[in-house]
Amino acid sequence: MTRKLLAMLLLLISTAFSQQSAREQVQKMLDDQTAAWNRGDLLGFMRGYENSPELTFFSGDTILKGWQATLTRYRRKYQSEGREMGQLSFTSARIDVLADDAAMYTARWHLTLRSGQKREGLTTVICRRTKDGWKIVHDHSS
Amino acid sequence: MTRKLLAMLLLLISTAFSQQSAREQVQKMLDDQTAAWNRGDLLGFMRGYENSPELTFFSGDTILKGWQATLTRYRRKYQSEGREMGQLSFTSARIDVLADDAAMYTARWHLTLRSGQKREGLTTVICRRTKDGWKIVHDHSS
Repeated sequence: MTRKLLAMLLLLISTAFSQQSAREQVQKMLDDQTAAWNRGDLLGFMRGYENSPELTFFSGDTILKGWQATLTRYRRKYQSEGREMGQLSFTSARIDVLADDAAMYTARWHLTLRSGQKREGLTTVICRRTKDGWKIVHDHSS
Repeated sequence: MTRKLLAMLLLLISTAFSQQSAREQVQKMLDDQTAAWNRGDLLGFMRGYENSPELTFFSGDTILKGWQATLTRYRRKYQSEGREMGQLSFTSARIDVLADDAAMYTARWHLTLRSGQKREGLTTVICRRTKDGWKIVHDHSS
């Protein structure tokens, strides 16, 4: 085997390992987020989002900007009187590692309420690797 | 100035130029796509999407997979009897270059029909640089 081929092989292997590692880290962040939601810990759930005024949150027809506005919406929709957070799960989930520091997560979300009532929709989130680990920088849920 | 500082400066400048160039190329692809839509050229519009069974299209509550399924949906929604494509435009548009070969585009879409009726919604698209130029690999519209 020539040196060039060996170098290319090593690069391929290292890229594959780095993608695997990014994928696992993104999955862990999302799993932690879901676990927080399911124990009613909204602030724990919010730790998955970048705590920045640049965060964007698209929901149905509404554009929200910033971590604080996103938290306010979640509080109003899921913690105000008569509301509940319910149990969150995902199907058809897929992580695409786009770069060392960028990944896309797409899935169908499912929410089951105490009454047994179910809601579902689709989500696309973009994650970036920040100094505080992987964080969601854009969420589009419908 | 030390050599190391100079090298870092050159790297910063080259990264900035490369991001600018990626942004311009993504913008051009999206502009071409909108122009095609607005002259009723659905196949021209579809050239913005990666022609792959891996393309994903999230619309409202529906997950579509593949370029062909996406075309079929557009034909049914905008070219079947009594339907029209209308005039498409975007506001609050933003391109985030995530890597040399990956970018996110987010915007509010507006469609104006011949009757003057207007529809609007939000879109998040992920673009990758392919051998055929920048292409949309995932579209989430609501």
